[in-house]
Amino acid sequence: MDEYYTHPALQRSSGLSDKNSYSLGIFDSGLGGLTVLKELCSMLPDENIVYLGDTARVPYGIRSPATVTRYSFECIRFLLQQEIKLLVVACNTVSSISLPEIQKNLEIPVVGVIEPGAKAAAEATKNKKIGVIGTEATIRSKAYSKAIEGISKEIQVYEHACPLFVPLAEEGWTEDVIAFLIADKYLASVKEKGVDTLVLGCTHYPLLKNVIQKAMGDVVLIDSAVETSKVVRDVLLKNGLGRQSVSPPKRKYYVTDSPEKFRTLGEKFLHSPIDDIEKIALQ
Amino acid sequence: MDEYYTHPALQRSSGLSDKNSYSLGIFDSGLGGLTVLKELCSMLPDENIVYLGDTARVPYGIRSPATVTRYSFECIRFLLQQEIKLLVVACNTVSSISLPEIQKNLEIPVVGVIEPGAKAAAEATKNKKIGVIGTEATIRSKAYSKAIEGISKEIQVYEHACPLFVPLAEEGWTEDVIAFLIADKYLASVKEKGVDTLVLGCTHYPLLKNVIQKAMGDVVLIDSAVETSKVVRDVLLKNGLGRQSVSPPKRKYYVTDSPEKFRTLGEKFLHSPIDDIEKIALQ
Repeated sequence: MDEYYTHPALQRSSGLSDKNSYSLGIFDSGLGGLTVLKELCSMLPDENIVYLGDTARVPYGIRSPATVTRYSFECIRFLLQQEIKLLVVACNTVSSISLPEIQKNLEIPVVGVIEPGAKAAAEATKNKKIGVIGTEATIRSKAYSKAIEGISKEIQVYEHACPLFVPLAEEGWTEDVIAFLIADKYLASVKEKGVDTLVLGCTHYPLLKNVIQKAMGDVVLIDSAVETSKVVRDVLLKNGLGRQSVSPPKRKYYVTDSPEKFRTLGEKFLHSPIDDIEKIALQ
Repeated sequence: MDEYYTHPALQRSSGLSDKNSYSLGIFDSGLGGLTVLKELCSMLPDENIVYLGDTARVPYGIRSPATVTRYSFECIRFLLQQEIKLLVVACNTVSSISLPEIQKNLEIPVVGVIEPGAKAAAEATKNKKIGVIGTEATIRSKAYSKAIEGISKEIQVYEHACPLFVPLAEEGWTEDVIAFLIADKYLASVKEKGVDTLVLGCTHYPLLKNVIQKAMGDVVLIDSAVETSKVVRDVLLKNGLGRQSVSPPKRKYYVTDSPEKFRTLGEKFLHSPIDDIEKIALQ
């Protein structure tokens, strides 16, 4: 399989000869990864970005690990054809299951969404009590607990699944009284544990940041999208891979299901228009 | 492909020689179909019932029509091996996409969930205005509109997707103030149209009947699970296929993903214990 996942440009030379034409590649099972893209755009405004949402097969959280890995490599193979210099895995499921195998097979830097959030939370907590919220699949995987435990064994982690948050974010009911009530109900048990830090362990949740903050009170929220983008910025800097602003950056979106639905919902996520969406078939 | 879908018992004889050992077969992409099973158990307490939930591949609503049909026949092939005398397609997506092909290929009676609901609504409405609520996939398919139009062209149908209802039902928050607020918000536009009848066009929605009724006020609710079961009862009667109560009826559940999750959620749907669940692989 290796031949598919080795970046030809990186094979040819020790560095990227024309780093200005290469893009950041980012993929997710759906459109949640757009919150990561939004932060990347804001932190790295000169970078070209290619986004792939495997919207025909969302959600990955209900698939077997083998299937998640297979789907991921189909996404990656496509993105490598778009000439990317760094890969962001903006999907919690893929990050928790397939990241080591992806990193092993690619010669470009690969950044997942779990480690950055776990690291930021471990640094932020003072009382060593961290809450993590996410989809049922993410919580069941205990990916954040394991990552935080890998950083410090002294930290206690309380995880809680919030299945209504994703449809709530997708409906755009993010400031509604309904959103406040749901957040209150979900977060009561985590709040009771006395956590001083809460990880938003799902790429949809930054849209609900206001209601979550209100429900949690004086607690530090860790936004995985922000933390992941910081890591991407650092990796680009360290490897001299940053793009110099010679021309306006390109933003291109690929999806595997209806572009219309992606556009409508995606624009709610980005608070800006999505112009260039193309439907593709993965194989 | 036909050899797979022809019921051997029906091939051998003009009727079922031992109808008392045969079961009603029912399948859904997940556990929503349990609301239909619940009504079947209540209306036809002597019948053996085999339920299959393709929980590893739920939801079907996001798949292409060809994939939905392929998955359906994999479910059906399995159920035919369990010696069934009638098939209930308790999935709105399959009922709207694949029912004609299933009926063409099977020699046993096949009952879907859309026609019974559409027919009951057309009979119930006095002012010729019907509302239909369902998942985004069902509403996008316009399956109920088409079915009702096929019955009477004079009836106006107003459809509305309610994406939060399924996770709400699965969380068991069915009598919560949150459920009332969400129902109010979703149903306002349908109510404004002045419908006198509302079809619960998703197998999860009967769990939310109370809040939906409260939000809609004096409107007739059509429960597809009830209407489908009535049709099943009529078909059994008409074909002399009813089971005589010689021994207690058997109830058996098959799933393609974790039986534990199915049991926990399923018992909320049925309000009774689920004993006999087996995980299987479809092919």
